[in-house]
Amino acid sequence: LAPLSVVVHEQLLARWLERKKPPEFDLIDGPGNPVIIAGYGRYGQIISRVLRMTGIPFTALEASYQQVDFVRKFGAKVYYGDASRLELLESAKTRDAKLFVLAIDDVEASVKTAAIVRKHFPDLPILARARNRVHYYRLRDLDIEAIERDTFLSSLDTARQALEKLGLDPTQAARAVDLFRKHDKRQLEVQYAVRQDEAQLIQTAAQAAAQLQELFESDVKEGGAAALPQSAKA
Amino acid sequence: LAPLSVVVHEQLLARWLERKKPPEFDLIDGPGNPVIIAGYGRYGQIISRVLRMTGIPFTALEASYQQVDFVRKFGAKVYYGDASRLELLESAKTRDAKLFVLAIDDVEASVKTAAIVRKHFPDLPILARARNRVHYYRLRDLDIEAIERDTFLSSLDTARQALEKLGLDPTQAARAVDLFRKHDKRQLEVQYAVRQDEAQLIQTAAQAAAQLQELFESDVKEGGAAALPQSAKA
Repeated sequence: LAPLSVVVHEQLLARWLERKKPPEFDLIDGPGNPVIIAGYGRYGQIISRVLRMTGIPFTALEASYQQVDFVRKFGAKVYYGDASRLELLESAKTRDAKLFVLAIDDVEASVKTAAIVRKHFPDLPILARARNRVHYYRLRDLDIEAIERDTFLSSLDTARQALEKLGLDPTQAARAVDLFRKHDKRQLEVQYAVRQDEAQLIQTAAQAAAQLQELFESDVKEGGAAALPQSAKA
Repeated sequence: LAPLSVVVHEQLLARWLERKKPPEFDLIDGPGNPVIIAGYGRYGQIISRVLRMTGIPFTALEASYQQVDFVRKFGAKVYYGDASRLELLESAKTRDAKLFVLAIDDVEASVKTAAIVRKHFPDLPILARARNRVHYYRLRDLDIEAIERDTFLSSLDTARQALEKLGLDPTQAARAVDLFRKHDKRQLEVQYAVRQDEAQLIQTAAQAAAQLQELFESDVKEGGAAALPQSAKA
């Protein structure tokens, strides 16, 4: 009934729990929850489960009805509705929150929600999910700095596994991907800095292709021909 | 023109290049490329850029025309069409490839492509992207073991940042997320092992909610009431 992996995991968890320090807010008496999660799809759900495991109550805002009211028994709350409506944010006691997690995948709904939260709760930190570079830029325009592209880290991990399958040793593969990750994050900010107007943020297929080409060229400058394995250089 | 971060990055890259060992296949004389990437959206593009930086040529298969033919000048190839059609796979010289990266986001198209690659190129290793747990299970049914849920790692990283914002120190936050990641991966295999039939793999909203509830309960068993911070237990 308790396979080895479970036993090992529980030992790790027990060890971790001994060392951890509780966060500095009252989880019981406050009228709202410390975390608001807007968008309760696969992204928001993973975040909520990590919070649950760590004992931090959350309030989820979700546009479509999802039958997830059971989370209430874990100290959570769920509000169904449009997270960009101030009334919903007020009902969810956003004013009492310490953190707003913007996990909505629809770009327009995400940006609209970010704007209203920024306007009415200017001091509330926001952690956001972005679909792509253009979504990222639109959130940056609202002074949101903690933005994660939602498939970025998994695609990098698949790339790392690919390099290993192709003969790089694990350390080399991890280092290559880490260098790329840093280069791409810097490149994201470089492209953001030179964007010229709002119109550029309405993405077309041609713009996406041009952007990709620019990235390939920037990757070449960074990694360059020197990055080619010896078999190709010979 | 060369800010500090660029200089530092180039030094790191130079150091990495010195240490790396080339992969063991001929990049010039072979009739096909060593890597086939099916699905050239944001996921496949990131992987292709990492391969490019490392000097490994790839062939991209993409259902819709995307104006990315410029990659040819980097030793890459692009074929537009349905990657689940054997003729396209043959044209792309899949037989010569060392690795197939399944980066298609549409679940049905992904599973169909996986099945045909498994059938006609049984020895070709596949690295796959999955949208969610059900997509994961359907790929597992085809004996694909290297499957990455496409928003999983970014959502975990947002969770890690959330824990830090809420007062956990960086080491604690990283450890909590790492424990959760291992627990969830194990839980994914446990749920896969007990699935009863194909019908279970057609996901409804009610099933998704029941699955989430089961996960919350499993998280509680693992992390449990013991994981609550002291302020909540008092």
